Amino acid sequence: MSFSDVQQAYERIRSHIVRTPLLESATLNALLGARVLVKAESLQNAGAFKFRGAVNRLLQLSAAQRQAGVVAFSSGNHALATSAVARKLGIPASIIMPSDAPKAKIDGSRANGATVVLYDRQKDDREAIGAEIAGRTGAVIVPPYDDPDIMAGQGTVGLEIVEQAQALGAKLDAVIAASSGGGLVAGVATAVKALSADTAVYAGEPAGFDELARSLASGQPESNAPGAVSICDALQVVKPGKLTFPINLHYLSGSLVVTDDDVRRAMKAAYQHLRLVVEPGGAVPLAALLAGKLDIAGKTVAIVLSGGNVDTSVFIEALNV
Amino acid sequence: MSFSDVQQAYERIRSHIVRTPLLESATLNALLGARVLVKAESLQNAGAFKFRGAVNRLLQLSAAQRQAGVVAFSSGNHALATSAVARKLGIPASIIMPSDAPKAKIDGSRANGATVVLYDRQKDDREAIGAEIAGRTGAVIVPPYDDPDIMAGQGTVGLEIVEQAQALGAKLDAVIAASSGGGLVAGVATAVKALSADTAVYAGEPAGFDELARSLASGQPESNAPGAVSICDALQVVKPGKLTFPINLHYLSGSLVVTDDDVRRAMKAAYQHLRLVVEPGGAVPLAALLAGKLDIAGKTVAIVLSGGNVDTSVFIEALNV
Repeated sequence: MSFSDVQQAYERIRSHIVRTPLLESATLNALLGARVLVKAESLQNAGAFKFRGAVNRLLQLSAAQRQAGVVAFSSGNHALATSAVARKLGIPASIIMPSDAPKAKIDGSRANGATVVLYDRQKDDREAIGAEIAGRTGAVIVPPYDDPDIMAGQGTVGLEIVEQAQALGAKLDAVIAASSGGGLVAGVATAVKALSADTAVYAGEPAGFDELARSLASGQPESNAPGAVSICDALQVVKPGKLTFPINLHYLSGSLVVTDDDVRRAMKAAYQHLRLVVEPGGAVPLAALLAGKLDIAGKTVAIVLSGGNVDTSVFIEALNV
Repeated sequence: MSFSDVQQAYERIRSHIVRTPLLESATLNALLGARVLVKAESLQNAGAFKFRGAVNRLLQLSAAQRQAGVVAFSSGNHALATSAVARKLGIPASIIMPSDAPKAKIDGSRANGATVVLYDRQKDDREAIGAEIAGRTGAVIVPPYDDPDIMAGQGTVGLEIVEQAQALGAKLDAVIAASSGGGLVAGVATAVKALSADTAVYAGEPAGFDELARSLASGQPESNAPGAVSICDALQVVKPGKLTFPINLHYLSGSLVVTDDDVRRAMKAAYQHLRLVVEPGGAVPLAALLAGKLDIAGKTVAIVLSGGNVDTSVFIEALNV
């Protein structure tokens, strides 16, 4: 996956997506002693950046493939995105989701007309379940991150950030995006480095699921210990993606690791200063800044708030922090 | 105030404002049986459309006027906007606010460096207090709505809505914006009618503060009875504006009146389906649609969600509806 793939993806998908705004809060800037530009992907169709990759992939299916349908495995946002795109394009969709995914994400995928298959996150292998359905029905598997078209679609977030920052007259010192399988940050890094080579790109991860931070440090794919728990339902993988990791190893300056309380404080700050509803995983880059995980004094930093699909009890808990 | 004033305002202010997105939710469309395009002015600088009018006015002050400063009287959003613009342009600001304004709005205006003067909404005359300060200091009064530059600035919301709807290939049957003094809806109507003459424009108001609905019906300015109470802190005037009312009487198809519970349900829907934090007054147009105040079956309607400055207790109360 190269920058020209991101550019081609953008031409393909731009009439289907929201060009989400790059927002700024004077209060937040004062609080952080930096200029912070906030890419509000929580306002993307289906409430997360995942729509970009899914629509880029599904628009390239053949007529026969569209008829056979698609299968996606996802902790939630990729499920919502794939089912939303499938509905829009009239493609049948089966979505394989962990049984402990947020109710908002399971219900939303069903409301989009998808057949939802639940699995146990600790015991079952979601990729095997997907392969079984695909084998039986002929449906095309739409992976959540290890796919060049998915990564290129997510990379359009980075392309827009650089364009929008330039329009504001801002020179970006750094860009931060959350990482689970690493598709978003791999795509963003590919675009940002092509357009603005001096800008540092960082991932952000929740404690207990910091495989990318450790893999970047060791130079090889490291796994998370089983049994970890995090409020960030969208950011829970075992190990870095096969296709995403080499890209991230090449481009990233590091991955910033935050706690659940850091995340709750960031959700509250996004609500208060930006009037955005952000889900836990989507708040990680802001959590990293508020927790002082990166020295940004006097700098200009863009952060991706990548999704807004959150159960109300979790959201209210964050507002009460 | 004519459409060319709105166009000139847009050229003047566009580098200072957020071009807020026109969002859409498949779930909300299905729920309402219509295509609903949501202008998210809650994402505007200082959290409300008011920034547009304030920056349009303040950019036209002379050097001597900038030095003498500005005075604004406001229930909150015009206070936040004027103080934010004044800080940005280095102009001293005094803001006259009701003592029962939301804490978020009083604190925010102070954080913007303004001198905040509180008054009693039931007893004091805010315009008299403003005139006294202006007389003593030479400061320029920045009225919240009865001013051609303020109305023209707010009208840029309507200009952007029509442009953004055209980009989506949507033909607008109606546009709805909340009304207090009527500056927003007067500006929006001026722009929308100039660009799309067949589009109906409606105001929205809270019960107890429905002076515009009654004034449009009678053809002359009607007043609200004293003592009414509404969750919509931003939409509480006694009678229609002197300059705004003739414009609204000329252009509007009516004003839709909603209850506090309608408003709370709309705040929850905006949170759930659009991931937006909207304040009570800003949710009125969505409340009108959800409460069935307008027959929109099969139509395309744009609504302005005009602000997002809400105290957390009020917001959580809406989420718990």
